[in-house]
Amino acid sequence: MDFPLVTVTDFVRLQKRLLDHLGIDRLVAVAGPSGGSAQAIQWSVEYPEMVPRVIAVISPGLYIHPYAAAMMDCWTKPILADPAWNGGHYDVAKPPLEGMSQALRLLTLTALSYDVLGEFGYAPADEARHPADSLAHEFKADAMLSEIVQARAPALDANSFIYMVRAFKLYDVRDRLHQSMARYLFMPVESDLVFPPHLSATAVEMLRAAGLDAELFMLKGNGGHLDGLTQMDQARSVLCAFLVN
Amino acid sequence: MDFPLVTVTDFVRLQKRLLDHLGIDRLVAVAGPSGGSAQAIQWSVEYPEMVPRVIAVISPGLYIHPYAAAMMDCWTKPILADPAWNGGHYDVAKPPLEGMSQALRLLTLTALSYDVLGEFGYAPADEARHPADSLAHEFKADAMLSEIVQARAPALDANSFIYMVRAFKLYDVRDRLHQSMARYLFMPVESDLVFPPHLSATAVEMLRAAGLDAELFMLKGNGGHLDGLTQMDQARSVLCAFLVN
Repeated sequence: MDFPLVTVTDFVRLQKRLLDHLGIDRLVAVAGPSGGSAQAIQWSVEYPEMVPRVIAVISPGLYIHPYAAAMMDCWTKPILADPAWNGGHYDVAKPPLEGMSQALRLLTLTALSYDVLGEFGYAPADEARHPADSLAHEFKADAMLSEIVQARAPALDANSFIYMVRAFKLYDVRDRLHQSMARYLFMPVESDLVFPPHLSATAVEMLRAAGLDAELFMLKGNGGHLDGLTQMDQARSVLCAFLVN
Repeated sequence: MDFPLVTVTDFVRLQKRLLDHLGIDRLVAVAGPSGGSAQAIQWSVEYPEMVPRVIAVISPGLYIHPYAAAMMDCWTKPILADPAWNGGHYDVAKPPLEGMSQALRLLTLTALSYDVLGEFGYAPADEARHPADSLAHEFKADAMLSEIVQARAPALDANSFIYMVRAFKLYDVRDRLHQSMARYLFMPVESDLVFPPHLSATAVEMLRAAGLDAELFMLKGNGGHLDGLTQMDQARSVLCAFLVN
């Protein structure tokens, strides 16, 4: 944990160096979902002459709202509390997998939705082991969530996750809007519980108040945050119009 | 953890014994907020002849939806992972306070709202210790949430909490609606993130489909779940009409 903190600005400056290396000096648009939208928006205030358009999908908006930031803190707390984390100096062969799994369970659940969990179902995970009979017996939805988490947790590094969370908690471009020359298209998902649509609506209001051009296109869907990845077809004509205008 | 599981039905049967002891054989209405509403609804199917009316405030509805149930699992996981919990056999002088605090942090955050957290603010908790400078430096909203949690966590017993969560996860009266003779009034809060209004709306639909009388009155408010406790004045005339009809 001696590594200095990194920020979304650092991510964007690194991406800029890559573009410089490739000889690219102007972009048609910068686009991204979720944390990627934060980077896209950061691009527009960091290198305004390069960015005429920003497409921000399932976005936190122009900063991380304290509610979303507090939820992110809930993601990191079980890692910090895992004895295997050891103040960040864990053995890479024995990482804080329990803490990382809890973090990922909460993150995954929030990225899903009532409808998706409803499909997982209310039944016992095992008919012979009903949840009414013992605390050790699980519901199906919880067991399915555990499966998803157990498959993904070993691929994530705990310290990297903690630094990433802090980077996004520090994301805030609100006092730099006057530097932007971009037009913005926000595309929230109506059932998103990670970054609900009102955060995009607030961002559009703030950009317009700063004299910038911003619009919102609501993606329909009952799949929550992840619909931002799967429901983009709905935005085809809106995206085409936004890119050619 | 050798104690048998308890259910919302058990809670209600115990309350019935108290009423029997007091010589009360009919109630004007049974009312409660949140988990209290689950008990009120359970009353109406358990002792239908005693319950003409149910007032269900910030309610999960007629069962705990798998999403809410999965979130409750996220509350208990940090307790189970706390070494001090010791499989439930903890020293009462050294309880699993870290796990209980994490549980309570998530529960408290979910019971609040974007507007309440927005008021907590995005600033550093300590101006001299900016969150951009070190992982050890906190944001104000997170620090205020920690204060709330640290004040309340020592008053809660971890095993009691785990049994309570399981009791509510098992709550489901859907197959017993035909036994009810009650009329129902659901009062969700528009900004509730624990039991969002659509859960009450679904309950009203299901009750009507079962031939029962059910109505919904939406409490306005930006305070989240806890507005179910503070905003009841809005329902004064609706409640009066419901109780005399």
